[in-house]
Amino acid sequence: MRFTSEQRLDDGVLEREFTLGEIPGILWTPGSASAPAPLILVGHPGGLRKMYPRLVARARHSVVEGFAAATIELPGSGDRPRSAAAEEARADLRRALAAGEPVDDEIVDRLVLPLVEKAVPEWRAALDALLSLPEIGGPVGYAGGVIAIGIRLAVVEPRISAALLFAGSFVPRTLFEEARQVTIPLQVLLQWDDEGNDRQLALDLFDAFGSREKTLHANMGGHTGVPRFEGDDGNRFFARHLK
Amino acid sequence: MRFTSEQRLDDGVLEREFTLGEIPGILWTPGSASAPAPLILVGHPGGLRKMYPRLVARARHSVVEGFAAATIELPGSGDRPRSAAAEEARADLRRALAAGEPVDDEIVDRLVLPLVEKAVPEWRAALDALLSLPEIGGPVGYAGGVIAIGIRLAVVEPRISAALLFAGSFVPRTLFEEARQVTIPLQVLLQWDDEGNDRQLALDLFDAFGSREKTLHANMGGHTGVPRFEGDDGNRFFARHLK
Repeated sequence: MRFTSEQRLDDGVLEREFTLGEIPGILWTPGSASAPAPLILVGHPGGLRKMYPRLVARARHSVVEGFAAATIELPGSGDRPRSAAAEEARADLRRALAAGEPVDDEIVDRLVLPLVEKAVPEWRAALDALLSLPEIGGPVGYAGGVIAIGIRLAVVEPRISAALLFAGSFVPRTLFEEARQVTIPLQVLLQWDDEGNDRQLALDLFDAFGSREKTLHANMGGHTGVPRFEGDDGNRFFARHLK
Repeated sequence: MRFTSEQRLDDGVLEREFTLGEIPGILWTPGSASAPAPLILVGHPGGLRKMYPRLVARARHSVVEGFAAATIELPGSGDRPRSAAAEEARADLRRALAAGEPVDDEIVDRLVLPLVEKAVPEWRAALDALLSLPEIGGPVGYAGGVIAIGIRLAVVEPRISAALLFAGSFVPRTLFEEARQVTIPLQVLLQWDDEGNDRQLALDLFDAFGSREKTLHANMGGHTGVPRFEGDDGNRFFARHLK
């Protein structure tokens, strides 16, 4: 892990870009940390540069409450090399959506499963590197999409103690089986009117999770319309489980 | 409105029992109020004496955050005169549930509609009396069940600015139409595994509400298993809308 740039944001939050091998990432830490901070992994659908305004807003909102926050680029997104198979699956998905056709499970599997297979070990490697920093103390939470990545991480990575998942569609059927194996506390955000989202699938997935403590927060509005107060609720969820 | 008893609870909260005509009620106010407090009406399924431990816990949780809280007995509950028709409907409901039969809409209508018709004017009269007290300033929120009463109040009572509703079954079909007329901010609590509750009906009702700001919080566990943190979330919901 190599830091490549560093800046202080105006609320004192320290933002550092890094690379982990070929993978770019960003780490945000509190302006003045007295003790090692619990870490929130900031999940997203890929494309750090495009997503930056939303990612930095989410990260700062948590970091001013005493968390550290970090994210990495997903495989095949941003400046990272594309996979021909993933691009083909993405094109098939777009074609189905544009034609108003139902999206075949087979397309979802081709699109999401290889992404999960590649991204999860990268998140875990990032976790190794991040937890070796003296300013980060664990425990660790995962917050955001891709929900399939969050599910797999929650199952295979014992250092993740809680997850705040953004419900999204395009969840491979096999991930439902994994969802039953998740036992950490969950908060699941569902945008009730998300046009690109299958509400019933999200409710079925929430039902499938094996966690004894799981809470669904459904709000009005579309994909990017998550209300501001959910950021505060997310902080309190992680404060209950990480602090 | 006549106060009949008064005691200080150990956190300084002032608890006063009152009667409003024949209707008993309880008012909880902050130990030391500097300004008139916004009011939360504490809804419940009837039976103040039996419900008291849960009601006082909910009320205190809000009052220590600067709200006033009040509740009244429902018609036909506690020491109030029974209605033969309501008792008969309740017996029919019990019979259907005991036999594992689906509950006829007709039974639900007979049980709930007269209750709503009687209870809502009583809540409104209580509101008149409560808002005339110098220590209560409005605005007003409604928190709890019976959800059908909360819906009707939200439609007809303009002084109610926000409602935290406990999803329950046995909602007359006509109340779905009223739900579409509700426009105040809502937070709806759903116990996901509530054996006595129809989950799909609760989701349909949440969908029906006309409010632009509505949030569903679904948690694991049965009817009385609402997690403690939902009390804090409820206070923050009312703080956003009543303060």
